Formats: sequence, C-alpha cells, structure tokens
Amino acid sequence: MNDCYEQYINYKTQIDERLFSFIDKEKPKSLYEPLQYILSGGGKRIRPMILILSCEAFGGRFDDAIDAAIAIEILHNFTLVHDDIMDKANKRRGRDTIHKKWDTDTAILAGDELVGLAYKSLLKTKSDRIGDIAKAFTEGIIEVCEGQSFDKEFELRKDVKLSEYIMMIGKKTSMLLETCAVIGTLIGNGTEEHLSTMRMFAENIGLAFQIQDDLLDIIADEKKFGKKIGGDLREGKKTFLLLKALEVVNDGNDRDKLDSVIINKGVKTEDNIKDIKKIYENYGIIDFAQKEVECYTQKANEYLERIMESDAKGMLRWFSQMLLSRNF
Amino acid sequence: MNDCYEQYINYKTQIDERLFSFIDKEKPKSLYEPLQYILSGGGKRIRPMILILSCEAFGGRFDDAIDAAIAIEILHNFTLVHDDIMDKANKRRGRDTIHKKWDTDTAILAGDELVGLAYKSLLKTKSDRIGDIAKAFTEGIIEVCEGQSFDKEFELRKDVKLSEYIMMIGKKTSMLLETCAVIGTLIGNGTEEHLSTMRMFAENIGLAFQIQDDLLDIIADEKKFGKKIGGDLREGKKTFLLLKALEVVNDGNDRDKLDSVIINKGVKTEDNIKDIKKIYENYGIIDFAQKEVECYTQKANEYLERIMESDAKGMLRWFSQMLLSRNF
Repeated sequence: MNDCYEQYINYKTQIDERLFSFIDKEKPKSLYEPLQYILSGGGKRIRPMILILSCEAFGGRFDDAIDAAIAIEILHNFTLVHDDIMDKANKRRGRDTIHKKWDTDTAILAGDELVGLAYKSLLKTKSDRIGDIAKAFTEGIIEVCEGQSFDKEFELRKDVKLSEYIMMIGKKTSMLLETCAVIGTLIGNGTEEHLSTMRMFAENIGLAFQIQDDLLDIIADEKKFGKKIGGDLREGKKTFLLLKALEVVNDGNDRDKLDSVIINKGVKTEDNIKDIKKIYENYGIIDFAQKEVECYTQKANEYLERIMESDAKGMLRWFSQMLLSRNF
Repeated sequence: MNDCYEQYINYKTQIDERLFSFIDKEKPKSLYEPLQYILSGGGKRIRPMILILSCEAFGGRFDDAIDAAIAIEILHNFTLVHDDIMDKANKRRGRDTIHKKWDTDTAILAGDELVGLAYKSLLKTKSDRIGDIAKAFTEGIIEVCEGQSFDKEFELRKDVKLSEYIMMIGKKTSMLLETCAVIGTLIGNGTEEHLSTMRMFAENIGLAFQIQDDLLDIIADEKKFGKKIGGDLREGKKTFLLLKALEVVNDGNDRDKLDSVIINKGVKTEDNIKDIKKIYENYGIIDFAQKEVECYTQKANEYLERIMESDAKGMLRWFSQMLLSRNF
C-alpha cells in the first residue's frame, strides 16, 4: 500500500513537471497566461495515471506513454474550462475559474487552444499505432461533447430517466477514462482483447465514481468531504439519487417534495435537504446507490483481473480503490 | 477559364455533399442541430479546394484528399462559430449565428464538437504520413488560436504596429490556408521542398487576401461588395490601412482624425468615413495597400511557378486569381 502511494507520488510529480514545462510560450499573453494558470491548478492527475499504468500493464514504459498522458490531462482541463463557463462556476479547486478571473472570451479561446496543445503532445508519441491512438483520442472528445450536451438538455427536461442519466455519465465521465485505458493499451501494444477489457475496466470505474459522487453529496462527512452536503439538491441537479427516487416514489407527500426539487430548480433550506435525505433513506435509494457503486466497482475489478499480473496491474487495482474510497 | 469554373463547381458540389452527409447523428439534438445548420450555411469552400488541388498537383487523387478537405472546412467553421461569439456577430452569410439563434453555451459546445469531428474526418485519410498530416492540422489550430488572441489584444491596444498586424493576420488568416497546402502536398506525397514552396504560396495568398479585404471596405463598389463601405471604420477596426496611416501621418488635423478612430473606438457618420478615406487617398495609403496586395499576389504566383505544370496547378492559378479579384 505504501509502495503504491510512493509510486503514485513519483509519477504524479513527473506528470506535473512535464505539464508545467509543456507551455513554453509567453505570447500572446492573453492566451498563455490563463493556460499556465489552469494547468498549474493541481488535481489528482487521475487520467494520466490510468493511461500510463495501462501502457505499463502490457509491457510498455512510462516514457512511451508520458506525452499521451500529458495530452489527456490537457484535454481534461479543456473540458473543465468550457464546462465552467456553461455552469457559471466561479471556483475550481479553490481558485477563480478562467472566465471569472479573466472573461468568457478568454476562457473560450484558452479552452480551444488546450485542444490544440493536447493533440500536439499526443502526436509526439512514438508508436506504429499513432493513427489508432489519435482516433481514440478524437472519439473521446466527441463523446465528451455529446455527454455535456445531454447534461445541458437534461437540465431543461422534467422527465429524465435513470437509464438516460447512466448513458450521459457514460459519455461525460467514463469516456475520458476509457480513452486513457485504450490509448495506454495501444501504446503498450496490447491486443484487441486487451483493448476491450481495459475499456470495460475504465467504463465501470467511471460509472462507480460518478454515482459515488452523487451519493457523497448526501451522505458524506462534511469535514472530510470538504464542502457542505446537499449542494446538488440546492442546485436542483438531476443526480442518480433524485432520478431513482422519482422512479420509485409515485405519489403522496414525498412525491410532491421530490417534484418540487425539479419544478423549483433546487431546494432552499437545510430542512428541505433533510426532508429529501429522509425520503432517500426511507425508500432505500441510498442503499440502492451504494449497491450500484459496489456493483460497478466489482465489474471493474473483474475486468482488471482478466489481464496478466504485473506491478502496473497492482497499481491500477490500488489506484481504483483509492479513487473510490476517496482516501486522497 | 470556363473549364476551370466548371471544375470548381464540380469539386464544390462534391465537397458540399460530403460535408452534409458527414453529420449523420441526430442526438443530442442540442448539439447536432446547430452543427447541421452551420455546415449547410454555404461558403466558397476555399480551404478544401486548396487542399485537394495541392494534393493533385503532386499526383495525388481527389479521393485521397477529400476526407482531409472536409476536415479543414469543419475546422474553419469551428473558428467562425467561436469567433462570432467573441465578436458578438449576429449574422454570418446572411443567417443568424449559432449563439444568436440558440445561445452562447450551445455555440461553445458546437464549436468544440466541430474540432472533434474535424479530426475524425482527417484521420480517415489513408496515408503513410498520417502522423505528419495530423501534426500540421494541429499546428494550424494552435496558430489560429494565437492569431485570434493577438487580434483581441490589439482591440484593446492603441499602439499596434503594422508589422504586428501582418504577424497577426499571418496566424489568423494565412495559417489555415498554409495548413491546407501542406496537408494536400503531404497526401500527394510531395517532397520537403514542395512542402515549403506550397506553404509559401498559401501564406502569400492569405496576406494578399486579408489586405485586400481591408482595402475593399474603403474602395469597393457597394453594390458589388454586397455591403456598405466603411464598416471597419465604424467598428474602429485596426486594419492595414488605418495602421499604415498612423505610421505615415504624424501630426496636424489629419492625425487627430485618425487618432479619434482609435480613441472613440470607431467613427459615427458618413462624413467621418469620407474624411478618413480622403486622408488615405492624400497620403498614398490606398496606393500602398494596393501595391502590397499585388506584391503578395506576385510572390504567391512565383512560388506556384516553381512546381511542375499540371491541371491542378492551372486550377490553383485560376483559383487564386478568382479569389483575389473577388469575381465569385
């Protein structure tokens, strides 16, 4: 466990260094200043880690995968910059977002440039399969945009189904993790079977992670969670829990309370949050969500077990456990 | 001449068809509806034409280049969608822009998706040099973003030099044309020398085209031009003409009038426009700009003449003449 953590910190340090040194231009200042700001904003570097470990799991080396790993982290930051504009989010990792610190135009352009820079880093990868690698990366971008569009559509709809939500988070959250696993496996020269196994591993990790995120908003220890619980309810977000509750609770006072979250686009008071939490508890929504997280985690592990034993596989196992227990 | 025009229409028709059929998805509707709208909005398809002809000039075929040609047109449309947000432009080719017809969030996402779709089409290209092709495409995106950032910075500055303006339009206007020429040449399997020759051809075409655009805003026949002259002056745009005039006219009443365009961020009346036009005429600014257009056009032709004679070269010669005479 400690060895894994040390290895993680070692890799993370190298990823951070490469990421900071990647932006070596200064002009135009209105473009490169916000880029340096966003890329130095921290983060767990989950995606580059999965990409590098997926490469190593099939015999590839850290150095073979690092350019693609940087690419995926830059791409992830592109999605954050543009999503923050759309979500009108003023804070990200404790700091002002780009559109808040500068303005919307600057954030649009910074995001666009991040896509270009992401491909620039990706295309430094030396591999006979560079065409397939670039295709996987591109498919990732397309699906993430689709996921974000569905998410925005769902904000306006009152009749979103749980199955639609799962489809949406598959695109918005899982897809980039799948892209990491697939590109890492391609660079490591894995087989077609390895590719689909690793893709399924990452997809299930992504689904488990997102449902757990929805769950933590309701059941987390506020101190450990680092923010007040019930934020999603305040914003009227159509989370896994709310959509499941709407499927289960068909009438009565409880149904009215759930409907009011949708109709009023969020709740206002602490008491409202407690009421909804009580409904979630009474109807087994929290248990159900926890079981779903366990189920997707279990599936992810099963896929991971299909590949041959290696240090990298051990690290992937540890890393996904850490992610899902939110222990770091 | 007529043969060339027929050939152009033939190619343009095929480009349009491929472009429309490229968006074959319907959901999420909030994403694919605006995409279909923007791609069916018309346009001369200048960039895909240059790409295809550059490929043919070195023995490649239309079919080898069409996916990359579609890619570059999609990428060009991405720049239009995001630039229109930043420029608060409500009309494009006589129709509402995406952010006007839908909203800014929709336009941001549609632009992002266009980048993904552009790479998707590009990566369908069958070539041993696909890595270099993707790198050239990526360099195009990065430079165009830099060009747009410089353009936005120049809007806020009062001391922009003509040389800076040339640098900016090199990135914002010429670079995508260079990308077309380079990718076409790569697909056609041209040599390193062919690549640099074709890049210089395209760069000079781009500069000639942009300076002529600035010139037409002042000297065009309003009926033929399709819009009122002086639009750039009304918006206070720092065009080639205005920046040159500011370099030449150092004091007196004329200088005050030029300064007022910058300070007041544009002029208001027809008389103001006539005054500035008079200054341009008196100080030889219009002659100078016309000579620069001729000079860049001449350079472009010289580069083109360096490559071996072919139907495609003849078409490129005709096409750049058409472009610069704005005869279509």
